[in-house]
Amino acid sequence: MVPAVQTPALVVDLDVVEANVRTMAAALPGDRLRPHVKAHKCTRLAWVQRRVGGHRGFTCATVREVEGMAAAGLGDDLLLANEVLDCRRLGALVERGARVTVAVDSEETIAAAADGGVREVLVDVNVGLPRCGCRPDDAGRLADRARARGLSVRGVMGYEGHATAVADRSERAAVVESAMERLATAHALVGGDVVSAGSTVTYDLNRRATEIQAGSYVLMDSYFGPMAPAFGQGLFLELTVISVSRRYAVADGGLKCLGMDHGPPVLVGGGEVLVVSDEHLTFAPPPGEPVRVGDRVRVIPAHVDPTVAYHAVLHVERAGAPADRWAVDLRGW
Amino acid sequence: MVPAVQTPALVVDLDVVEANVRTMAAALPGDRLRPHVKAHKCTRLAWVQRRVGGHRGFTCATVREVEGMAAAGLGDDLLLANEVLDCRRLGALVERGARVTVAVDSEETIAAAADGGVREVLVDVNVGLPRCGCRPDDAGRLADRARARGLSVRGVMGYEGHATAVADRSERAAVVESAMERLATAHALVGGDVVSAGSTVTYDLNRRATEIQAGSYVLMDSYFGPMAPAFGQGLFLELTVISVSRRYAVADGGLKCLGMDHGPPVLVGGGEVLVVSDEHLTFAPPPGEPVRVGDRVRVIPAHVDPTVAYHAVLHVERAGAPADRWAVDLRGW
Repeated sequence: MVPAVQTPALVVDLDVVEANVRTMAAALPGDRLRPHVKAHKCTRLAWVQRRVGGHRGFTCATVREVEGMAAAGLGDDLLLANEVLDCRRLGALVERGARVTVAVDSEETIAAAADGGVREVLVDVNVGLPRCGCRPDDAGRLADRARARGLSVRGVMGYEGHATAVADRSERAAVVESAMERLATAHALVGGDVVSAGSTVTYDLNRRATEIQAGSYVLMDSYFGPMAPAFGQGLFLELTVISVSRRYAVADGGLKCLGMDHGPPVLVGGGEVLVVSDEHLTFAPPPGEPVRVGDRVRVIPAHVDPTVAYHAVLHVERAGAPADRWAVDLRGW
Repeated sequence: MVPAVQTPALVVDLDVVEANVRTMAAALPGDRLRPHVKAHKCTRLAWVQRRVGGHRGFTCATVREVEGMAAAGLGDDLLLANEVLDCRRLGALVERGARVTVAVDSEETIAAAADGGVREVLVDVNVGLPRCGCRPDDAGRLADRARARGLSVRGVMGYEGHATAVADRSERAAVVESAMERLATAHALVGGDVVSAGSTVTYDLNRRATEIQAGSYVLMDSYFGPMAPAFGQGLFLELTVISVSRRYAVADGGLKCLGMDHGPPVLVGGGEVLVVSDEHLTFAPPPGEPVRVGDRVRVIPAHVDPTVAYHAVLHVERAGAPADRWAVDLRGW
C-alpha cells in the first residue's frame, strides 16, 4: 500500500479547469475578463487562462502576486485591485517593463503610488461592500489629485462583493445593478476607459463593467458552486483514512489545509463531516458504505482562496491520473 | 513613512514567550512536559522550550514536523501523536539516530510502523474526543499485536480535546478526570512507562498523565487565553490600515493570514472586528480614537495553530523592538 500522493494533498482536475476557462472565455473573451489570481495563486494556472482563455490582463490582490506574475512572463497588464502604502516594489517592476496599475481611494494611497514609481491607477469606489473604496461623489476629486501627481487615471473599479452572499439569482442581479449604478456615477466623474468589477457569481449579471475580475471560476468551491452552475468543480482535497471506529472515520487533514470561514468541506461521494480539527477530519461515511483504514477520500473545500493559501503544491491530474505538480508560487506578501 | 515590517506580519513577543515557558516549566519541569510543536511549527521556538524550559522530548502532529525537529538537533525523543500509514520517512530518521515514537490505534497502523522501520509506539486511546484512538478495552490486544511485530510499546496516549471546549474550570476538571479514567483502564492493559495526554487548558487539571502535551501555552490565542490565565499573549498579527471611511477602517490582512474556526481575532486596544475577508479586516475603531491611513494595528488571533500555518516567518520582538526573523520551518506534510 504505497500512496500515490502524500496526503493531505490539493488535487486539480486540469480537464475541468480547462473547460471552466473555455466557458468563461466564451462569455467574456480576451480583455473582457481580467482573471483574478488570488483564488489560485499559481502562475501555471494563470498561463492556462492566458493560453486557453486568451486573457492578457490579470487582477492581483497582493504585491507578491504582482511580482510573481511579472516574473512568470505575465506582466502585460497587471491590476493590483487593492490599496498599498508602500509601492516601491511595484515601481521597481514598472521600471523593469511590467505594466502595473494600482487601486487608490485616498490621498495617502495616491501619494504612495506616485512616490513608489507606479504610473497608472484606478480609483477604487465603494459600491456597497464595507471595505475599501471612496464615496462615489468623491471619485472625481481623487482622480484630479492623482493626475496632479502625474499619474495616469485609467478609470474606476468597485467590487460588488456583498452581492456574492445573495443566493437568489434575481435578488443578486438587483444588488449588482444598484452597485454598478454607484460605480457609473463615479466613472462619469473620473473618466478613463476602464470600469473594472465583478466576480464568478456576478460575471453574467454585471452589464456595466468593461472588464470582470472573476477568479474562483477556475477551481470553484462548495459555496460558489450552486451560484455558478456553468463551472465544474476542479479542486479537491485528498485525504487518507487513518482511523475507523463504529460510528465515524478520521482522515488526515483539517484546519491547516482548509479555509473554514464558509463552513466545513463537502465529502465527494456522500457522508457527513462531523468535526474538523487542526490535523483531522472526522466524518460519518455514507450509510452502507463503510470505509477502511488506508482508503482515500476527497472533499470539496467550502472556500477556495484560503484553502489554496495553505498549500505549497497543486497535484495536477489529467484524465483522472496524476500528471504534474504545480507550485502555489504566489503565496505570501 | 517606511514600515518596519511588511504587513501582514506575525509578531512574537519573545519576553512573553520566555515567561510562558518558565511558568510552564515551573509547573511541569523536564520530562513532565512534552511540548507540542504543532501550535508554533518553529524549531527556534522549540529551542527556547529546550533551553529555557529544560524539556528534551517533544510532541509532533505530522511527519514533516518530526523530520524538521530531528534536523534541528531536537531528535532526542520525538512523539508523533498521530496515526500514520506510511512510516518510511520516520524509519529513515530512526536509522539516522533520532528517537521516534509513533501513535498506533489499529492493526494497519501497527503494521505501518513495523514495516516503515519505527521501533517504538504508544497505543492511542479514545478518551472521549471523536477522533483517533482505540477503545480502552481493546488497547491490550493492540499492544500484544505491536509486541508480536517486534515493536516496543512505551505506554499509552489519549487526548482529552473535548475538555478544552469546556470554559468552566471545575466542569473541565470533571471531563478531564473521566477521560483519564479511560486512559488508566487502557494503561493497565498495555503497560509501559508513558501515559501521555493533556493540553494548555488542562495541564494543571490532569493528575494521571506522566507527561503533558501542551503547545498553545508558548504563544496563546484569544480562545484559550481566558482558560489559561497563567500565560501571556505572545503572538500578534500586525496589519496596516489602508483605507478609512466614516464608520469603519480597513486593514491589510484577512482570511489568508488568520485561522478563523474559533471566530474573528480580537483588536489590541479595543474596537470591533466587523468583517474578515480574503485580504482585508474591516473594523470599527474604539469610540473617540479614530485611526488614519498608514497606522499599524495589532490583533490577537482566535486560534494560534491554523494562523501560524499560513505564515513563512515570525517577526521576533525583544523589549518591544524588532530583534530577529524566525522561519516557520515545520509547515507542510
